[in-house]
Amino acid sequence: MTKPESKKSGMAAISSTGKCAASAAAAQVNNGLVEPDCPDHSTHIRANVMKQTSRESMNWRNTGVDCEVYDDGTNTFFWRAHTVTVLFILTCALVYVTLLEETPQDTAYNTKRGIVASILVFLCFGVTQAKDGPFTRPHPAYWRFWLCVTVVYELFLIFILFQTVHDGRQFMKYIDPKLGVPLPERDYGGNCLMYDPGNTTDPFHNIWDKMDGFVPAHFLGWYIKTLMIRDWWMCMIISVMFEFLEYSLEHQLPNFSECWWDHWIMDVLLCNGLGIYCGMKTLGWLSMKPYQWQGLWNIPTYKGKIKRIAFQFTPYSWVKFEWKPASNLRRWLAVLGIIFMFLLAELNTFYLKCVLWMPPEHYLVLLRLVFFVNVGGVAMREIYDFMDDPKFHKKLGQQAWLVAAITVTEFLIVVKYDPNTIMLPLPFFITQCWFLGILLIFTWTLWRFFIRDITLRYKETRRRNQEVPTDRERPLGNGNTATPSGRSKLNGSSETVRLRKS
Amino acid sequence: MTKPESKKSGMAAISSTGKCAASAAAAQVNNGLVEPDCPDHSTHIRANVMKQTSRESMNWRNTGVDCEVYDDGTNTFFWRAHTVTVLFILTCALVYVTLLEETPQDTAYNTKRGIVASILVFLCFGVTQAKDGPFTRPHPAYWRFWLCVTVVYELFLIFILFQTVHDGRQFMKYIDPKLGVPLPERDYGGNCLMYDPGNTTDPFHNIWDKMDGFVPAHFLGWYIKTLMIRDWWMCMIISVMFEFLEYSLEHQLPNFSECWWDHWIMDVLLCNGLGIYCGMKTLGWLSMKPYQWQGLWNIPTYKGKIKRIAFQFTPYSWVKFEWKPASNLRRWLAVLGIIFMFLLAELNTFYLKCVLWMPPEHYLVLLRLVFFVNVGGVAMREIYDFMDDPKFHKKLGQQAWLVAAITVTEFLIVVKYDPNTIMLPLPFFITQCWFLGILLIFTWTLWRFFIRDITLRYKETRRRNQEVPTDRERPLGNGNTATPSGRSKLNGSSETVRLRKS
Repeated sequence: MTKPESKKSGMAAISSTGKCAASAAAAQVNNGLVEPDCPDHSTHIRANVMKQTSRESMNWRNTGVDCEVYDDGTNTFFWRAHTVTVLFILTCALVYVTLLEETPQDTAYNTKRGIVASILVFLCFGVTQAKDGPFTRPHPAYWRFWLCVTVVYELFLIFILFQTVHDGRQFMKYIDPKLGVPLPERDYGGNCLMYDPGNTTDPFHNIWDKMDGFVPAHFLGWYIKTLMIRDWWMCMIISVMFEFLEYSLEHQLPNFSECWWDHWIMDVLLCNGLGIYCGMKTLGWLSMKPYQWQGLWNIPTYKGKIKRIAFQFTPYSWVKFEWKPASNLRRWLAVLGIIFMFLLAELNTFYLKCVLWMPPEHYLVLLRLVFFVNVGGVAMREIYDFMDDPKFHKKLGQQAWLVAAITVTEFLIVVKYDPNTIMLPLPFFITQCWFLGILLIFTWTLWRFFIRDITLRYKETRRRNQEVPTDRERPLGNGNTATPSGRSKLNGSSETVRLRKS
Repeated sequence: MTKPESKKSGMAAISSTGKCAASAAAAQVNNGLVEPDCPDHSTHIRANVMKQTSRESMNWRNTGVDCEVYDDGTNTFFWRAHTVTVLFILTCALVYVTLLEETPQDTAYNTKRGIVASILVFLCFGVTQAKDGPFTRPHPAYWRFWLCVTVVYELFLIFILFQTVHDGRQFMKYIDPKLGVPLPERDYGGNCLMYDPGNTTDPFHNIWDKMDGFVPAHFLGWYIKTLMIRDWWMCMIISVMFEFLEYSLEHQLPNFSECWWDHWIMDVLLCNGLGIYCGMKTLGWLSMKPYQWQGLWNIPTYKGKIKRIAFQFTPYSWVKFEWKPASNLRRWLAVLGIIFMFLLAELNTFYLKCVLWMPPEHYLVLLRLVFFVNVGGVAMREIYDFMDDPKFHKKLGQQAWLVAAITVTEFLIVVKYDPNTIMLPLPFFITQCWFLGILLIFTWTLWRFFIRDITLRYKETRRRNQEVPTDRERPLGNGNTATPSGRSKLNGSSETVRLRKS
């Protein structure tokens, strides 16, 4: 499959889909390896490639998806992986720390230091050597770094999962000695009057009370989530579904209980809605903006240089996500699965804090969110690529694999550490609602992908049966119409396929 | 650079160098993406690609280095990475172990279990998702597995390196409770008479005594090392150098002290020599054998199927190593560096056993050798590719990076854990020999890459100065000879380059 945002070590390694776009020279230069894909353009491309070495050529590439990318193939110091340099510096650091510094005699301290050193060496290795993902801006090493962090976080979770509840909570003390103590009970909900006549100085004080740091957090969170999901409908569904989940689970986690206007007006409409709106606007800009990558030293003006530096923080190219959930059963189940995992990851944020005794304002909670912001986009893109591959031959991307594993592991920790909370039965009314919802989805699935299909196929067969006699009536003298029934069958089946995929 | 032995997820992903080999159709099919690289063949290739989907095409590829590879592009169940399947099985295993089994209350046991589980999850991730190296036979997952083992081993070494000497030795008890006790002193050397007249029943008993398990181990080791290094001269140099090292260091490690005939006749000539000879024969066969990869189900006969299965354990394609150490300074230093690291890794085997109190017959010692056998070949190939890249733009391969880091870390452990042994001064005679050897290498380097170059350049300048007047004398009427001095300069400089690189 095409990966328009991928770029190997600064040189263009974009795979074109093999079709010739009229506007695109479509030369592919991969580490000095030239693979022109349009026979009629090949001579022109060869000439282009000759120039490539002198870095004067203009290579517009059609990435096969949404946008054209221009890249002059600059591969400066900035772009290289510096494998040998990192190895050398690492060696020097190890020599200094282990041979020239005196080793402390404290076993616990040394153990901690050994683990931290192992993680740092792993990061050194991963940042220079791990497999590149779909993103390359601002630098491939940035995304390799987050991949390694993902691995470390998942391994940490696995370790925690295998401890007893008491040991696991106390283990957090190694990270921050203030952790490992039970959280104080908190009051949520409370007075839900929007206009409180009892308070004469400020009757709207209930609203101002809710205007805390979570308002910009919600807005920013949904802005970023929109950039990840790149689809208005999916964002809205997840946003609304999460409020339903808060309603459903407020008997388990008291901080889910909010006033109705907090749920629907402030969260869904204002914070999330505005975030999604701004996200969609940014997506529109990203899908329209030109993707021209020139080496910084090839740009003559200072303004151009500054613009180029700023654009380094925008994607290398752009892929518009078209989830098309109703196009076939596989995509439908995949989209349901993505929404499910997304909501599960969001719930994990709250449940994990609860079971591991993490105060909501602790920096680890914030770090986890920063982590998810960085890896979520890559994972979503990889899932989209995986879904878009019709043959299932492609691998599920590494980041998507890890994020899925992390979400599952976090959920398992929640279940293992606090089965009592998780098992608190849902109120009858809530159960009914969920049962109804699941039934509706199930019925729709059944109708859309099975019953409707059968009906369509039946109609198609009837239509074909009506056509065949007409074919037979035709005289069999012309060589072009020698196999009319066969061709009709082919057309018929391909039409069925098209109808099923529409 | 071309990586003829690489094969992405079973589909051909070989990078052709862009030149058309007359015998090779050179169609590149990478996950359904077609990149024909010869414009004149493109129509033929397109047709070929159409057939590719029906798996009937015949794709001969010129890999640009040594051999032609035929691959019908079969991408069956066997070749896929099964990312989703592994993720699903992993999830099920985690659910079973952590939720359905009761967690033991023993903190130490749980810690151990948590670490083992983390390593297993890391292996699950790595085997399916890590970056592929240059080798693909018998299966890319095999080499991904060893890459992950390399990472785990390096992190383990780093952890050990940060402990105190006592803690580090005792830490081995967690792996095997029998470890962590000082090794008994051993006698080596002894009677060196080949023919012992005092022993009437068997005067050659000293020779038979040396015929232990180390004889086949030496032979097998050097057979494999030859396959790694792929060069008779380098193998012989390393083999002889190691015996010199044994002589030099027998005052530090008593088990280096052997009889003279044990060093030179049994080790160098018989075991190593025979191993290298057999290795070179195998290399010859590998460079000659045809590289034809058909899907197992496309082969009609049973004999063919069995042969295909056996050939699965031979490389995908073949690259002959031409180290050419004298071609330029960079290659010369690189080859010296490789020999140095190789010998250091061999010495580490003995010193590490000594400082970590590992009995020579312990299974961990054997496992480390099995490990090096598996990763050494990949590392050597990656170093060769890296050296062969004229522009330094390529990354040093991941396995080579890790093996270098491991060798350094092992050496640092040796230095930190037993500085007294390492610092035992060399006998004066040995020091003299080494000094002489290093001086000789240094002088040769100086002469070959600096003095000889200056002489050549001086001769070249003189020759050109003699030529230029002849050029000026020629009339400037012919357009073809309009810039004779410029062309002469170009020729001259390219000739200098050629001379320097020869």
